[in-house]
Parts: sequence; structure tokens; C-alpha cells
Amino acid sequence: MGESLLLKIGQTVFLRDDSLVIFDRRRFPHQVEEVICLDYEAVARAIEVMAVQGAGDIAITAGYGLWLAAREIEKKNSFNPGEGYTLMEQARQRLVATRPTGFHIAAMLKNIMDRTDWNQYPWSTQILTQLDIIIDKQDTRSRLTGDWAETLLKDGDNVLTHCFPGAGLLYMFIRARQNGKRIKVVCTETRPYLQGARLTAWAVSELGLPVTLITDNMAAYCMGQGMVDKLITAADRIALDGTVANKVGTFQLALAASYHSIPFYVLGYGGPDKNTSSAQEIPIEFRNPEEVVNFNGVKITGAKVQGFYPAFDLTPPSLVTAIVTDRGILIPYEVGEYWSKPIAGSVKE
Amino acid sequence: MGESLLLKIGQTVFLRDDSLVIFDRRRFPHQVEEVICLDYEAVARAIEVMAVQGAGDIAITAGYGLWLAAREIEKKNSFNPGEGYTLMEQARQRLVATRPTGFHIAAMLKNIMDRTDWNQYPWSTQILTQLDIIIDKQDTRSRLTGDWAETLLKDGDNVLTHCFPGAGLLYMFIRARQNGKRIKVVCTETRPYLQGARLTAWAVSELGLPVTLITDNMAAYCMGQGMVDKLITAADRIALDGTVANKVGTFQLALAASYHSIPFYVLGYGGPDKNTSSAQEIPIEFRNPEEVVNFNGVKITGAKVQGFYPAFDLTPPSLVTAIVTDRGILIPYEVGEYWSKPIAGSVKE
Repeated sequence: MGESLLLKIGQTVFLRDDSLVIFDRRRFPHQVEEVICLDYEAVARAIEVMAVQGAGDIAITAGYGLWLAAREIEKKNSFNPGEGYTLMEQARQRLVATRPTGFHIAAMLKNIMDRTDWNQYPWSTQILTQLDIIIDKQDTRSRLTGDWAETLLKDGDNVLTHCFPGAGLLYMFIRARQNGKRIKVVCTETRPYLQGARLTAWAVSELGLPVTLITDNMAAYCMGQGMVDKLITAADRIALDGTVANKVGTFQLALAASYHSIPFYVLGYGGPDKNTSSAQEIPIEFRNPEEVVNFNGVKITGAKVQGFYPAFDLTPPSLVTAIVTDRGILIPYEVGEYWSKPIAGSVKE
Repeated sequence: MGESLLLKIGQTVFLRDDSLVIFDRRRFPHQVEEVICLDYEAVARAIEVMAVQGAGDIAITAGYGLWLAAREIEKKNSFNPGEGYTLMEQARQRLVATRPTGFHIAAMLKNIMDRTDWNQYPWSTQILTQLDIIIDKQDTRSRLTGDWAETLLKDGDNVLTHCFPGAGLLYMFIRARQNGKRIKVVCTETRPYLQGARLTAWAVSELGLPVTLITDNMAAYCMGQGMVDKLITAADRIALDGTVANKVGTFQLALAASYHSIPFYVLGYGGPDKNTSSAQEIPIEFRNPEEVVNFNGVKITGAKVQGFYPAFDLTPPSLVTAIVTDRGILIPYEVGEYWSKPIAGSVKE
């Protein structure tokens, strides 16, 4: 079985000297193009333009932004802890503001700030130590989530997925292969950024699974033709009422799956957001409409046509079969029970 | 109110000397590029590559292919009527084979052949006379269909549409404007060929209506946000059981509309296909998978990823609110009553 560059975040987002290197995901799979960030503002911009994507990976990348902010402060000739902290707080706010729908970025940066002992220097070392732990933890979480999700797959299953659901999806396929299950994958291309085509289909094909790419409007047809046994996506945020915010298009796929009695499983990794009780509290990010009316720098419509670009949508719990976390599989209405579940090792080890 | 080049087929498909000129719709709206067809084979290829599209317009274009075939035969030094007819029949079969899902092309070419008096020369003149009548009839049919459809619209309505539903949609908007109804339009871009972006959004904006372009995966989100009052598409073929074959993605939109209790109206122009009793009899056209894995000549995924390209899908009658024809509005289960309806003038004249 092959390997995917997208399995571990350290392969595409890493420090080199005093800068953060991001392999620009918009150029995958054909080019490895480095976005080199020398300060947190550059990191914020890289997140905004989607050089990196996926709620968990965005959060870690933003964490490196905090590290860069701390380094910047430490390199100054005169160091004033009060001013320094104000700058760190500015950096945090700037980074959190980049992508509003996912909750991981805000939660993780808050945790890092809370756990930093501001009387201990250098701050950057503390932040880096925390980040290393977070990255390990996220990898374990992805593996556990993938292992739980794998228990839902049968030999011969056809899995439809949307956007790039992160390493959990890849771990799920790796585990399925180890368990002798032959899985085929259908990926939506996921307009306008084509993450499904550029990231998911590519990564899954690198693992050695057969992959078919479709445009976003073909999913219901494929379901009706018996080409799909399970719909599996990730979530950028899960509310305590079981609502799933994920890449725009997920809601539409869930509707088509429901009509065809195809189960819809959500890779929920670390569970719901404690601070989001219901759908109404999830802010939907609206991106630049120019990203819809242009493709690869070419305008695809008339000059008088407006674009509209909600980056996420909300799928109600009634359309979600189950939410798969690192602690087990929950029905959406009971997703709040995540924290009462034991933290286990891999379900298959 | 502005005019659209796409309102009348004669503006984009016409004879010049002994050749057929097609304004290549794949280049719209930014370029007018002529595809010049000197023989029927060139016409067949232009239809296959989708230089022209839309069931009715394809059929008329193919009709000009028959005219070119007749001209070719007539220009030969020795003319043998038996051989000539065989060649005409070959041309008909070649042209019909270009796009299997729509039924208009086969029906129209059969009619032209049946109505040609093969003992009268030149055949090309007879064919051209018939084509002129067909074009007039199709324009009237589009206007009547648009007029009936307009009766379903209310002032302030937001109409979501998919692909390019033909002149009936434009006539509907023109009539609505005349009747003082302010209509806003949302167009899906309609991957992979982007007919929604390149043709519909452009044409509607040229008429002066406000138009918003979305990617195909955003429709359910927009419906959930109250941005859509009516879903309106065309059909490439309607079976007698009320099944609607149309551009892939229509089924998914119908599911989302049904979930949100948004009516789905189909512009059915000349009614169902007499010879197609049910969904099972509608052949779905599969196009080259390369058209999915490439965009504007650029590969969008990994080398090992397969593409899949069903060009149409089937929407069951249970998801269709009504079918609008030139003879009136029918519920899908009674679409077979089309022929018992009187042929009326414009409903609004």
C-alpha cells in the first residue's frame, strides 16, 4: 500500500529555520509549491487563501502563527512582557478571524494561550512544545477515528466522500485494507476549490484504492445507480444538537443519501463543539464571490453576473446516521455524550 | 430590456453559402468563435463536442446536417436517386447517434425524411423549407411555453435554474417583466461544461434581470436560506410516466427542492416522447471521462484517478410539481394528456 503526503500534517506544514513552510494545497497534486511565512500575518493570509485547509490542519497552522509572533517579540532588542502579551493577543485574534466556521482554530489557540506560562521565557519554546503534543494527539485522534469508522465498512463497499475529510479518512482506508476489505471510492470534485479532485481523490489513489471522480451534481445519479453504499464526510463544526457544519455541498449529498436510504457517517474526530448548542450559533463563512465567477483566473460568465460563495452548509441531525469520533460512534442526537465516553486505544489493536 | 443572442437559434446557427455556421457555445460569453461545417460529418462532430446544446437546438442543427448531405449528393456529376437516398439515410443515422438521451433529434430527422418527396428535386430545397417551418414552430413553442410558465411566477420570486433551459426560460422572464413582475435568478454553474455560467447566467443578465451564480453544490444551502422560490429546468426527454431526463444534477436539485417544499417546474415545450413509456427506456449518455478529470485543458486530479461522466439523470415524477408545455401546464402523472390539449395562442395575448 502506498503512502499519502496528506496523512501527517508535518509533511506539508513545518518549520524551517525561523519560518513556517506550507506546501500550497491549491497546487496539489501536480506541484509542490512552498508558501513561506515569516510572520503571523503571512500565516493568516495563507489560511485565508486556503493554501492549507481542513479544520484540524488549519488550527495547527495557526498555532505556528502564534509561534512566529512569539519569535518576533523575542528577537526585539527591548522586551516588555506586557507589550509582548498584547502583541500575542493581537496575533491570536488575527489568526482566529481567518476562517469563522470551524471551531478548532479558536479553541486550539485559546488553549495554547491559556497553557503558556507568560512568566517563563522563551514563550516560543513553550508554544512549540505544546504544538508538538497537539500534532501527536491529532494524529492519534485521526487514527482512532479512522479505526472506528472502519468498523462500519463492509468488504466491497463503495464510499462516496466530499471535499477532503482529513487523515481519518485515509486511516480508515488503510485499516480496511489491513482487514481484507476491498473498498472503492467515489469523490466529488468539490467546487470551487476542487479539494475532492486535487486532495482526496489523489491521496486515496496514492494509497492504492480505486477512485472515481465525479462533478458535484452527479452524486444523486450515482446513488440511484447503486454506485454508493456509504456517504462519509468530515465536519468543520458539530453543534450539541447534532447539526453538522461542513464544506458546502454536504447538505445536498445528505439529502440524496437519505432519499436512497444510504447511511451518512460524519468523521467527527474530537467530537462536537462544547460552546455551540445549535445550528443557529454556527457562523457560515462567505468567501469572495470572485472565486465562483472565475476559474483558474478565467472568468466563466458574463460581466453583469454576481457570484455567491457560502463556504459551508449545515446538515440537520435527522439526515446524519452517525458521528464517528476518536471515542466511538454516536448517533447525532447523543453527540453531547462524547465526553462521557472512555478514551480508548485503537479499537482494532 | 436587453436582448439575448440565445433567444433565437438563427442568431447562432445559420447557413452561409454552402456551409453551416455554428457560434461555438463553449466559447460563450467571451468569444464568438465560428465552427464552420462543410458536410454532415462536421455537423455531427460539432454536436458531439457540444458546440451547440439543448435538445431542440441540437435537433435543428442536425436538420442542417441533412441539408448538407443533400447538397453534397446534388453537387455530384452523376446523380443516382437510389444511391442518394442511401447516403441520406446514412447521414440521418450518423446525426441521430450523436446524443442518445434527448429524443428530439431522432424524431425531427425522421419527420424530415418522411415528409421529403424523394421524387422531387432538389431535395435540399425541400429540407430547407421544412427547417424554416420547424424553426418558426419551435420559436412559437418556446414563447408559448414561456408564457404558460410565467403564470406560475409571482412578483418578487427567486428562480433557481440549472444548465441552459432554452428560449422558453428567456421568454418566461421577458413576459414576467412585461407583466410587472420583478424576478431574480440564481444559476448553477453546471459542471463540467458550465452551461449555467456561460449561457444561462449570461443570457439572463443580458435581458437585464439580476443574476447570481453558484456552484452546483450550493443549491440546497440557498434553498434553506430562503433564496429560492421556484426551481425551473428544461428536459431532454420526458417519458409518458412523468420521468424527466435532464442535465445531470437536476435530480439532486429536485430532491433538495422537495425537502424544502419548493415547487419544481419543468419546461416541457412540445410535451413527452410518445415512444418512451417509462424511465427504463431512456438511454443515459456517458461522455468521455477525460472531460471530468480535466478543466480548461488542465488536469485537476492525480494520474491514477478515473473520471465518470453521465451527462443526464432521471428525476422521478414524484419530485416534479408540474410540466409546462406550449399547450398548458400538466402534472407529471398526466403528461400523456398533452395531445388532447388544444393548441392555443399565447395565453397572455
